[in-house]
Amino acid sequence: MTTDNALTPEQILSAAEDVLRRFGPAKATVVDIARALGVSHGSVYRHFPSKAALRESVTQRWLDQAHDQLATITVERGPAVERLHRWLATLFAAKRKKALDDPELFATYMTLVGEASDTVEAHIETLTGQIASILQDGIHQGAFTPSHAGNAARAVFHATARFHDPEYAGQWSAPRIEEDFEAVWSLLLNGLRSH
Amino acid sequence: MTTDNALTPEQILSAAEDVLRRFGPAKATVVDIARALGVSHGSVYRHFPSKAALRESVTQRWLDQAHDQLATITVERGPAVERLHRWLATLFAAKRKKALDDPELFATYMTLVGEASDTVEAHIETLTGQIASILQDGIHQGAFTPSHAGNAARAVFHATARFHDPEYAGQWSAPRIEEDFEAVWSLLLNGLRSH
Repeated sequence: MTTDNALTPEQILSAAEDVLRRFGPAKATVVDIARALGVSHGSVYRHFPSKAALRESVTQRWLDQAHDQLATITVERGPAVERLHRWLATLFAAKRKKALDDPELFATYMTLVGEASDTVEAHIETLTGQIASILQDGIHQGAFTPSHAGNAARAVFHATARFHDPEYAGQWSAPRIEEDFEAVWSLLLNGLRSH
Repeated sequence: MTTDNALTPEQILSAAEDVLRRFGPAKATVVDIARALGVSHGSVYRHFPSKAALRESVTQRWLDQAHDQLATITVERGPAVERLHRWLATLFAAKRKKALDDPELFATYMTLVGEASDTVEAHIETLTGQIASILQDGIHQGAFTPSHAGNAARAVFHATARFHDPEYAGQWSAPRIEEDFEAVWSLLLNGLRSH
């Protein structure tokens, strides 16, 4: 039970996640979420103007779960080569953890993600922007050579899709997956590097 | 109508594809295929020992559709850099054509592929073997540097997954997809190259 006054968006989003997990994305309603919180559905609408907006926020929160860690790596000083490797490894670890720890919730979110192409696009823009920023640092440090950090960032993101795109979740427990990740990383690093 | 004597495996596989397209992979039977050919189901079993073997051959044939072209590029002489680019572009074009020209049949095959992990694995081994062979040529020509062509071939295959893995078919009509392919190619080529 939560009193209406103390209700935060974060609490609503957590309750929404629980309800989505229990009822599935097709059946979950705002009334279910309000009931789980012990508040009126009006209290939920005070924070989220519509069911669609609430679903989008839930999806966004899920997509951005590793966001703080990745943002931190992006703005660190330190050698760009090591930071880019850690950034990619952190993204992979975060996605894999979500997929393997709670496959049912993961499937639920895959449905939500499929409905929210704008949210997904913005998420990808944020991620490639972070890669571009690390590449730019590396160019300044004399470690990377690409003439256009933004284009190279997109290429790095696409070339590592197997290690962050949820479509591949089924392969993330394969025995060679870590080795495969490092092999792709070495190839990309060699492609980005000054020689 | 086909007489039993003239019946070839290729005719059976074509009929099986038609039947799969019409009835879907869940409902298609060997009897349906025999009926489409105007032969007894015994005639079909003379070529394929079981329904499972037939489905596997159909899947294999579909997976290997671009195989001849790719195999030709693999054994050509000529500069390995240009051949590797053409090999990857040919694979992408072949997969994309299948996905966009006949989406229903593509979906049917996606189901079959999901059931045939051994067939898929063998298919991937063939493809990465071809990449390795071109890389090996490039190493001899002094164009590529990887110390282990087999490992580098796997990395190239994984890094280009977005441009051949059927999971990505939904993105293959995106306006920037050609540009994205070329950007990943440039990055990989730079990674493979002697400097």
